[in-house]
Amino acid sequence: MRSEIAEQPAVLRALLGRRDELADVVGAVAPRPLRGIVLVARGSSDNAAVYARYVLELMAGVPVALAAPSLQTRYGAAPALEGFLVVAVSQSGRTPEIARCAGVLGRGGAAVLAITNVEGSALAEHADRSIVLGTGPEEAVPATKTFTAQVAAFAMIAETLGDAPGHAPWAGGWQATLDAVEAVVADRSPVEQLTPTVLEAERVLPIGRGLLYAAALEAGLKITETTGLPVHAHSTADLLHGPIAAVDPRTTALCFAADGPVLADLRESATAVGQRGAAVLCVGDRSDLVAEASGWLPVPTGVPEGLSVLPQVVRAQQLAERAAVAFGVDPDRPFDLSKVTETY
Amino acid sequence: MRSEIAEQPAVLRALLGRRDELADVVGAVAPRPLRGIVLVARGSSDNAAVYARYVLELMAGVPVALAAPSLQTRYGAAPALEGFLVVAVSQSGRTPEIARCAGVLGRGGAAVLAITNVEGSALAEHADRSIVLGTGPEEAVPATKTFTAQVAAFAMIAETLGDAPGHAPWAGGWQATLDAVEAVVADRSPVEQLTPTVLEAERVLPIGRGLLYAAALEAGLKITETTGLPVHAHSTADLLHGPIAAVDPRTTALCFAADGPVLADLRESATAVGQRGAAVLCVGDRSDLVAEASGWLPVPTGVPEGLSVLPQVVRAQQLAERAAVAFGVDPDRPFDLSKVTETY
Repeated sequence: MRSEIAEQPAVLRALLGRRDELADVVGAVAPRPLRGIVLVARGSSDNAAVYARYVLELMAGVPVALAAPSLQTRYGAAPALEGFLVVAVSQSGRTPEIARCAGVLGRGGAAVLAITNVEGSALAEHADRSIVLGTGPEEAVPATKTFTAQVAAFAMIAETLGDAPGHAPWAGGWQATLDAVEAVVADRSPVEQLTPTVLEAERVLPIGRGLLYAAALEAGLKITETTGLPVHAHSTADLLHGPIAAVDPRTTALCFAADGPVLADLRESATAVGQRGAAVLCVGDRSDLVAEASGWLPVPTGVPEGLSVLPQVVRAQQLAERAAVAFGVDPDRPFDLSKVTETY
Repeated sequence: MRSEIAEQPAVLRALLGRRDELADVVGAVAPRPLRGIVLVARGSSDNAAVYARYVLELMAGVPVALAAPSLQTRYGAAPALEGFLVVAVSQSGRTPEIARCAGVLGRGGAAVLAITNVEGSALAEHADRSIVLGTGPEEAVPATKTFTAQVAAFAMIAETLGDAPGHAPWAGGWQATLDAVEAVVADRSPVEQLTPTVLEAERVLPIGRGLLYAAALEAGLKITETTGLPVHAHSTADLLHGPIAAVDPRTTALCFAADGPVLADLRESATAVGQRGAAVLCVGDRSDLVAEASGWLPVPTGVPEGLSVLPQVVRAQQLAERAAVAFGVDPDRPFDLSKVTETY
């Protein structure tokens, strides 16, 4: 896991170098006019799909849905999807329900794009076109480089589907983002310092919103996978509608924050959890982004909010890997988890 | 909370008596042809929307999305929604982001239906038509009768949008369902017996899938709201893609199960959590639905899977209310939560 975390700058640079190829694939497969998008995924890939759910609706200007695969694999639901693009995402391409769900949705009239890390998978057989991320084999059970590659691919797809290509809110920010990922990978000291604080908490609560909600979700999943702690992220809005009842002095909130339209919401939630006695740690590019934060996992400045998930999630990966080692858990094969999960 | 739980049989009977009126409202507002549906909600209403996400796609045969409100309220995303129906759900109709999100989606071309419990709310002003549930005032912070009324309304909306009205998989099952809710409300003894077992668990894990996934989600939210325990539900498929790492002998799984297309998935997950040393309790109409279960919260037989969420979630409400009392928490006003949560 640690070596795969370290490969991410190179993986992302290589993927960004294939930008024109990705744009061609998307251009060839996306219906015109595009009426909507459905995303099919599980696990870490589903967290990347949450990022996509935001950036695709924002850029393509059409409604985006996350599939509920059991509708297609168990209940026989076959929605009419003329004019829709389905994007199915799976590291291995071998989770049966993802391939079957994509197949049913395609037969409903949608164009199907597969994003995998493995050439010639079962999923690719159900797709009209495929993007193979080319991260190289991912051996550790907790996905790292696959997740960030999926996010980067989705950001590029969103750029392609936008009315005005090149006018994404993160336009011009790719280089700073890749540099930031490289800098985060190169300096583990913030994580070495703060991991003990996180592990002393009985309850770890990642929070985020909007274009950084996926970072919080993926942080929760990584920490659960490597430590066996039940960690579940909430959007700041969902948190206030009930789950905040579980926030007390045993809680450490992990805020994923960047300058942007939802920063005020992060601050409001940080204040609310602070008032309940929780500790607040912030992942972000300035130590004063969230006033309540007593600790800070820094990422370099200059990364646009829309791509901040990339360096920020690498901090969470480092934290999860470091925590596993502290717990005496093998981060590559934790808790008898399988790399390929065969759900139907 | 306890008295509002007890009102549910009467509330649901009254709502079912308005079936023709609801069908008329839906018939008047739904675009023809219908291209898709977007649901806007937070908190318990969002869990009802998860139920709707399944039954509407199943019955209407069009893709259904759960809105990500920050896209509309914070990022200015204005997707094109000609031919779409937006259903916005809020007990009070006073959560600003729900009204604003529905307004933006309506201006994108969608027809907007509001479901509230209060006449003349801010949300209703953004809607083309409204359904007022008429549950009477809900005073307790944890929603109970509003949730089941929302679910019943969505089931009736799904019937109306189906190609063959009256041919829902739950057709003919309403009377048995209402009788079951009444029987569950009338007999609290199973919950009195099993609540101590649930509260001894350090980790409570509600699981469900498909048409009962919403029951698991709502159980998790209710127990969190009334006890302050961080309880988060998973679908059986999501559980196996990582979160199962947090299942160990400190865990009690709460399985929401019924005869139907996903029962085998519930059984598979119950086996998997049992192998990790977790206790398994089952909510369902037969004690042998899930072989691993060492405890059973019974609901009457004869309720179709598609409506089983109604009696099953009442068991979860009783459990949450009983647990609050055991914890010395006021279930009506727990943990400084507000009845109306003003997120934006």
